Parts: sequence; structure tokens; C-alpha cells
Amino acid sequence: MKSALKTIPGSVTAPSGFLAAGVFCDIKRLGTGKGSNKGRKRDLGLILSETPAAVAGMFTTNQVCAAPVKVSRTRASLEQAQAIVVNSGNANACTGPRGLRDAEAMAAFAGRLLKIPERSVLVASTGRIGIHLPMENVRSGIAAAAPLVGHSTEHSSQVAEAIMTTDTRPKEIAVEVHLGGKAVRIGGICKGAGMIQPGMSPTGKRPASAPLHATMLCFITSDAAIAPKLLKTALENAVAQSFNRITVDGDMSTNDTVIVLANGRAGNPLIAQPRGADWDRFQAALNFVTLELAKMIVRDGEGVSKFVTVRLRGAKSFAAADTAARAVANSALVKTSWYGGDPNWGRILDALGYSAAEVVEEKVDVGYSRPGSKKIIYALRRGRPTSTSLEKFREIVREKEFELHLHLNLGRSEAVIYTADLTEEYVDFNKGE
Amino acid sequence: MKSALKTIPGSVTAPSGFLAAGVFCDIKRLGTGKGSNKGRKRDLGLILSETPAAVAGMFTTNQVCAAPVKVSRTRASLEQAQAIVVNSGNANACTGPRGLRDAEAMAAFAGRLLKIPERSVLVASTGRIGIHLPMENVRSGIAAAAPLVGHSTEHSSQVAEAIMTTDTRPKEIAVEVHLGGKAVRIGGICKGAGMIQPGMSPTGKRPASAPLHATMLCFITSDAAIAPKLLKTALENAVAQSFNRITVDGDMSTNDTVIVLANGRAGNPLIAQPRGADWDRFQAALNFVTLELAKMIVRDGEGVSKFVTVRLRGAKSFAAADTAARAVANSALVKTSWYGGDPNWGRILDALGYSAAEVVEEKVDVGYSRPGSKKIIYALRRGRPTSTSLEKFREIVREKEFELHLHLNLGRSEAVIYTADLTEEYVDFNKGE
Repeated sequence: MKSALKTIPGSVTAPSGFLAAGVFCDIKRLGTGKGSNKGRKRDLGLILSETPAAVAGMFTTNQVCAAPVKVSRTRASLEQAQAIVVNSGNANACTGPRGLRDAEAMAAFAGRLLKIPERSVLVASTGRIGIHLPMENVRSGIAAAAPLVGHSTEHSSQVAEAIMTTDTRPKEIAVEVHLGGKAVRIGGICKGAGMIQPGMSPTGKRPASAPLHATMLCFITSDAAIAPKLLKTALENAVAQSFNRITVDGDMSTNDTVIVLANGRAGNPLIAQPRGADWDRFQAALNFVTLELAKMIVRDGEGVSKFVTVRLRGAKSFAAADTAARAVANSALVKTSWYGGDPNWGRILDALGYSAAEVVEEKVDVGYSRPGSKKIIYALRRGRPTSTSLEKFREIVREKEFELHLHLNLGRSEAVIYTADLTEEYVDFNKGE
Repeated sequence: MKSALKTIPGSVTAPSGFLAAGVFCDIKRLGTGKGSNKGRKRDLGLILSETPAAVAGMFTTNQVCAAPVKVSRTRASLEQAQAIVVNSGNANACTGPRGLRDAEAMAAFAGRLLKIPERSVLVASTGRIGIHLPMENVRSGIAAAAPLVGHSTEHSSQVAEAIMTTDTRPKEIAVEVHLGGKAVRIGGICKGAGMIQPGMSPTGKRPASAPLHATMLCFITSDAAIAPKLLKTALENAVAQSFNRITVDGDMSTNDTVIVLANGRAGNPLIAQPRGADWDRFQAALNFVTLELAKMIVRDGEGVSKFVTVRLRGAKSFAAADTAARAVANSALVKTSWYGGDPNWGRILDALGYSAAEVVEEKVDVGYSRPGSKKIIYALRRGRPTSTSLEKFREIVREKEFELHLHLNLGRSEAVIYTADLTEEYVDFNKGE
């Protein structure tokens, strides 16, 4: 069956016509007084399409947003782009006009060395806020990376490593799907760890549907032929069901960025309408790639020991469903009880009750299931404890992954949030010094 | 100067005509499977006015609220009451119709033994959610406490101990003020520790002015003569500037309760209008008592190592000021950096930026001061780092208490939030099992 989606090795260099490289240029050292990163890992990456590509981007809706977000947001609103330059170790956020000039200079320098127009280069940064980019290091990194770009899975892994901050592992995926008889590929990398509750939009304006609140960066490449406008629609749809559905610690970053480049090299018939089998398959493949990457971020969140899927049903509106699910997913008391393997549904009800969503205690169902299992074991039905023994839920909550099923029984809207527990390790990680 | 407010020893039995007692009746043991509380501490308390008193109450605005809240909310809306019965170890929340009957029976039993009408007894509970009250223990506790009630400071300390859950110390205060030539006293006790971000109102309806989100319990007594309606107004004003301004972990409890009884025994001229010197002095004294108790809750919050006062100025409205201050005070990343003594103002700007309040990066001032000092050391002015060395702020943030000054420079509204850091101990405390 040629239409089926297939996972393949590699990531951003898996699609035809894409090159990448990642190098170490010691960006973190300067300004933090925290010692050198030396020998630890790469911190600057380049992703390049051999030919101009359709571009789309989704960015943080934080009112305090980083300089690279401002630069890339404008460039992603255009039809085409060709490259991405990214660094870790410094967020270039809260850095004023100089920060903006640095972000532009970083893109311009990459454009010059890659021999493509400055405006076709998008830029992203992640790391500490409030420190100016060490531009000498950035330039030496770009100069080192540009001649090294290549097509291998090793090259894409270099960039996946270069964007890591507190991530414990690189995050990569690639898929292949058939569109109009042609094999089309989509590859992606991302990073996450802390400051993770993205709420992204193409413009920085918050979507009305969802109350919003990482740094997460994600770069996706594809050799699909798709009109730029439709690529933007597809990315908005994909992010809405993936990155905008996750929370680790409830903090939304100044730098959240998802960029996709699609260069058409697969030779499929151009997707020019948001309907039909090819559109559906492309959207499904992009949804799959973004959701898998989003889940990798949660599983590798700072100090995370448990991955929890919160499924909230029966709300009066999507906004209410989303608000209620996020109240539970972000409650310090709920998260710490999960860490302890304690199905403390009292704390869950408490969080539902203080959320801005309408909740009626006497109507709420609370159930637990193992991932992939359809068997929900209910602790509460219509606000009343069931006769099932606490030990039954405890067994589930003690596992590394489980699903929480909340039914408000007030309406027909639903929302899912992918989240994690809160551990001593998270605190230790973030206390600084 | 007779009008000055003076702190005196004791708490709820300091005002004339009030009696109290606290006993141990092992409420926590049943239902939790977590072993007995035996020998640890008192868990049931009584507070009694010898004569009927004006009553006022403020209660959680959580939509999921405990049975005792429902009972006391109704009774506090009346003009008079005479006693309070309270237990720790069990919240009697999410316990359905039986929970409501239990709360009523608890009050009725206390009324019978104290020889006062059932409806003049208010009730409060704190502890684990979702477990039925062990009524046999509750009755034996009330039966033991009723004959023991007395006027001494030892008696009030017994109740202050009986309401403790994860609190490490009892919280008590009493003041004396002169109204119309008479010495009038106000005494109070409270408990807090976790699930602390109260948002209380007299009716359970959320005040429009403040976006809301402990169990905290507070019982206040006074021998002032004040009209019931004015006592309610005074309590609303007092809670608005104290308990509703604190957050430990951002979770609002199902049980938050503040009750005040004023029996008129001081013989001051009845306060019957919300103006004049006596009203002003009474309000100031009640504000002082509630704010001191509220700060005690934050300082003794679960795992808390640092007390932080967030002063936000220059917002366009109080709601915006409150929202912005709470975003900072509840950010896991900001709180963990404080724990580490790290003045990570980047995380503060990040939290301001994702709050629902309007924030313009280029206008924000961020400063630090030692408590009580007027000298604010600015890290950021109009969004740009000052030349002051990081070491200067670090010295302040490393202290046990400090003040954070945030100025949005957009308007004239301000809000203060009293909060704390987030530590490994908090996580360890709440992981259960």
C-alpha cells in the first residue's frame, strides 16, 4: 500500500535536496561566567535547501520575544526561504536593538557564506536570556559549518545535537509518504527540556481559541511540492495538535520556533488546494512528524520521570476543555503526586474546580488507562468514587506512561494535553548557580 | 497614644468572652491507610463566644468546594453565630451528599454539647480530599473538647495546633486597639502550607477584579461591637489585601475559609457606618491581623526557603497588575531560580511576557531591594540591563527575604503578591506514598 506513511532513518537531510552541518564554537562561555562548554557538544547548526523552498513558521506568542523570532517571523511570512542558522547557549532574548542587529547579522553572514540571499535565511537561538550573542564565536561557527554541509544522516544529527540545551538526547524523525505516485519525505528535528508550554502562531498574535503559555525549537524539511500558502495552513494545523498541546512546566518561552521548508524536489503534482488525497496525506504526515517530536520533548523534559496524556472530554467549548486540561496538567500538586505514583484524584478535582472552565463536581468522571489500551478504569463517576480499589489506579499511575481521562459531562468539546510529572530533579536543574 | 495598634500575647481567646479547646481524636487514620496520627498532635478544635456574635466569612471560589464550606457559607451570610468546630486530617471535600450530612452533623453535635443553636455553629475541615469523615472520631473529639474550653492562651494554642496539617508551626496573633475610649481586641489563628493561592469571596462567586486561583483556614475573634454588615465589609477588605494576595504553589484549595466573630464585649460604641475614626482603626487592625497571618502562611509554606514580595506597578488596570504579578510569582522557573539565589531576570521577563496582561519589553523596569529598605537596585530599566553588576542583585536574592520591584510603565495600577521559592523539599513533600 503506497499511500501508507512509513518511518525512515534520518531527519532534516532525509528529503531530497537538503544539506546540514553542526559545529562547536563555544557560544555559551561568554557572558555567563559559568565556564566553557568546551568539548561538550555542538552549538551552531545550518540547514540548507539546494534550491529555494516554500516556507512556513510558527512562533512564540510571548509578548517578550527574542530577536531571532522577530527576524524569522517576518521572513517566514514570505513565500520562499532557503536556509536556517541556529545556535544554542544563548537565546538572544531581552537584548534590545543590538540583539536585533546581531540576529540579522547572523543570518546575513550565513547567507553570504552559503551564497544565497540574506532574506532567505531564517535564524533561531536558544539558551540563557539577557546576554548579547558572542558574535565573533557565531561568525567563526558559521564559517566552520558552511563548507561542511552534507546530505548524510550524520550531518542532520550534527544539527540535532547543536540545538540541544538541557535535552539529554537529540530528537529526530523522518517519514515517507506517496503523493501522486511520488515518494515524498518529511524530516524534522527539535529540542525542548524546560520552559515548555508553547503557544505559537504565525504572527505572534495569540489564537483566540486557546489560552496560551518552552524554549522549543523545531526545524522540518520536506521535498514535497506544495504552495507556500498551503504549507502555512498545514503547519498551523500540525502545531495546533502537537507543540501547542504540550506542557512540561507551564512556562512559555520567548524563543519558541517551528520552521518548515518544502523544496518540491520530490516532483509530486503541486499541492495547490487544501483538499484531496494528496493534501490529506501531506497533512497527516506533517501531523505525525510534529506530534512525535512534541512527545519526545515532553518525555525528555527537565527532570521528567513520567509521561502523562490528559484527555478532557465533555466541555462546553474547546477553550473550556483546553483551560481545564491545562489546569490539571500544570498543577504542582497534581504533578508531584504523579511523580510519587499516587493517583490523588482529589488534587485533580481541585485543579478542575479552580480552572476558569465551568466544572460541576457532581458530573465529573475521572479514569486511568495504560497507553494504547482502551480499558479505562474509573476512580470517579459523576463526582462519586467508584468501588474500584485505589490499588488498581496506583498500578497504572506507577508506570512510566499513562493516560488520564476526565469527562466533565457538560458538552461535546474535548482537548488533549501531553504533560509530565514534577520532580526534585527539575528543581535541582533550574535553581541555577 | 491610645489609638495606636499594639500586639499582645495570645490569639483567639485574647478578646473578651471567647473560649477555645483543641484535642486529639485520630481523624487522619481512617480511610487513608497511611497509619495513625497518634501521639503527634491535636486534630479537632472548638472556638466559642459566650454570647452571640456578629459573623462574617470568606470562602474558596473553587467550583469544587468542600461540604463544610457549603455549610459555613450559608451560616456566615446570617447576622450572628457563636461557635466554630474544625478538624484537620480530612478535608470532607468531594464526599457528595454524605459529606454534607457529616458537616451538618458535626456542627449539630458541637451545638448540642455547647448548648447553643445548631445554626450558630460554623464548621471547617482540612486534610486529604475524597475520604468520608470518620464521624465516630469526630464526635468523640467534640465530646472531649466541649468540657475543656477555656480562656487562656494555652487554650487558643490548642486550636492553633489542631488545625495544622503540613504546617511546621502554629500561627497566632492578637492585637489591641482603642475605639471610643475602650480597649478592643482582635485575635486570630491560621494554617496553610500547601495548595496555597486563595481566591476567596463571601458567596463562592469570583470577584471580577482578580483572576483567582491552599488549604488555608483562618479564624478571627474580636470583642468589638460592630454591625454584622460592616463586619462583612471589613473582612472582605482585609482578605483582599492579605490572603487573596498570597501564593505558595498556585493551587487554590477546595476548603479555604476565613471566619470572624465579633461579640461586642469590649463595650465600644457600636460601629454602624463604614467611616469615622473607629471604623478606620478597626479596619486597620483587622488588615494588620490578616496580613501578618497571611505572611506566616507563605513563610511556612511546604518546602519554602525564601519569602518574596512581588510589587508590580505601572499596569493599565488592577486586573492586569494582578495577572502579571501572579504570572511571575507562580512561574516554576522563576521560583526555582530564587531558590538557587539566582536573580535570573530573563525568566521574570519571560513570565511577564506570557501573562495575559499587556507588557511591552522596552518599558519594563526590574529591581530588587531588601525588606524594609527603600533602596531599589535596578537590573533592568526600560527593558535594558543597567550597569549594576549581577553580584549586587545576587547578594539580595540570596537572602531569606527580598522584594522584587516590577514596573510596566504603562499605567497607574499596582498589585502586590507575597510568594515563595520552589524547592526539592516541596516536591518530596507532595509526591505522596
